[in-house]
Amino acid sequence: MSEIKALLFDVFGTTVDWRSSLIADFTAWAAKKGLKGDWTALVDGWRGAYVPSMHEVRKNPERGFIILDDLQRTSVEPLAAKLGITGLSADDFDYLSRGWHHLNPWPDTVAGLVRLKTKFIISPLSNGNVALLTNMAKRAGLPWDVILSAEIFEHYKPDPETYLGSARILGLKPEEVMLVAAHNDDLQAAQDCGLKTTFIPRVTEYGPHQKKDFGPEGSWNYVAKDFNDLADKLGC
Amino acid sequence: MSEIKALLFDVFGTTVDWRSSLIADFTAWAAKKGLKGDWTALVDGWRGAYVPSMHEVRKNPERGFIILDDLQRTSVEPLAAKLGITGLSADDFDYLSRGWHHLNPWPDTVAGLVRLKTKFIISPLSNGNVALLTNMAKRAGLPWDVILSAEIFEHYKPDPETYLGSARILGLKPEEVMLVAAHNDDLQAAQDCGLKTTFIPRVTEYGPHQKKDFGPEGSWNYVAKDFNDLADKLGC
Repeated sequence: MSEIKALLFDVFGTTVDWRSSLIADFTAWAAKKGLKGDWTALVDGWRGAYVPSMHEVRKNPERGFIILDDLQRTSVEPLAAKLGITGLSADDFDYLSRGWHHLNPWPDTVAGLVRLKTKFIISPLSNGNVALLTNMAKRAGLPWDVILSAEIFEHYKPDPETYLGSARILGLKPEEVMLVAAHNDDLQAAQDCGLKTTFIPRVTEYGPHQKKDFGPEGSWNYVAKDFNDLADKLGC
Repeated sequence: MSEIKALLFDVFGTTVDWRSSLIADFTAWAAKKGLKGDWTALVDGWRGAYVPSMHEVRKNPERGFIILDDLQRTSVEPLAAKLGITGLSADDFDYLSRGWHHLNPWPDTVAGLVRLKTKFIISPLSNGNVALLTNMAKRAGLPWDVILSAEIFEHYKPDPETYLGSARILGLKPEEVMLVAAHNDDLQAAQDCGLKTTFIPRVTEYGPHQKKDFGPEGSWNYVAKDFNDLADKLGC
């Protein structure tokens, strides 16, 4: 096995707990503002709109690349209306969209990354845009060496341009790079591009709606319980 | 004055001492390998080839963007021949080119950045490519929040795309971003794009060949002695 030099991390679900973070954030914010709504349904519905909205970008390259912040801002307004959440101003919708910049890491994330950083280049490889990932890292203390995003490659995962572009921009061969993710489909796409792969289960990511990714479903190079367990396995 | 949220740093000369680093590196390496040559002349000549090589990229957009690693690798071989340095293998030229990934920071750099990071997003904005900047930061302990490079914008400084692109990708207005540089021409180009500016003198950058940038030559927002002095001035 050729030497691994960089670890790329999926972010939403693998590195941060988007669902619990957003539900807690919006519930507290709405209580303070006296706004009524089913914020859990909003968060779950919003995440449901995420993959189709990226697919629209993929299908319509002539429109140019659209960053995730803008996709999220576009999808939240009709979703709120559908859920009967009314009385939100443009600033309120901006606040909700900005919530994706302030997600909390899983309990093992920061400690594991600090250890993994001693031996490897560590970077997100996320569909989140650069500003989102930068603001999130700064707030949560994610000690990335560099920030790689779909925005840089103007392609969303699982497009091969993201995995191959990450290796290229780091000056590495695909096999010198390993993707760490809680999603088997992300890992499959990375493996198809020649990257190495680690599966980390995050079985509460979708709360009661979790339907898949309870365990590894491919021939991944590593399966680890969490980021600390991966640091153990990689000798950090 | 609107609030500054991010600081961008020029790298070669402002953040790291490329000249002393490369001369020391190549001299020690050559002694070990028994290679003869005027390594100081090579470093000075190489830096001299840097601006013209970027200008060739700018003038010939149809060839596509070429990263700095590749420009440096192309210019070093004829330069060595011109200086009568012979007997270098392709691996040797790769070693020399890779030298730009391993430059030493100025004595105040890391301590100043650590302080500035507590209050601002800090990033390089360099003509160096992403791999170069990532490897340099990891070795030297430069605590960047994100790595912005000409490579990401497919334009070299002082093209406006680099300054405006940095603000855009951070989700900020140009006036919320400040460039910190030891070069008046870099600052002028940033100011023309609406960014704020700090001049830091690095009067030994070019050694005995320093001809300019001994002091501020424009209306910059700040002039600081070094990165620690800038941290003082910005209340970090």
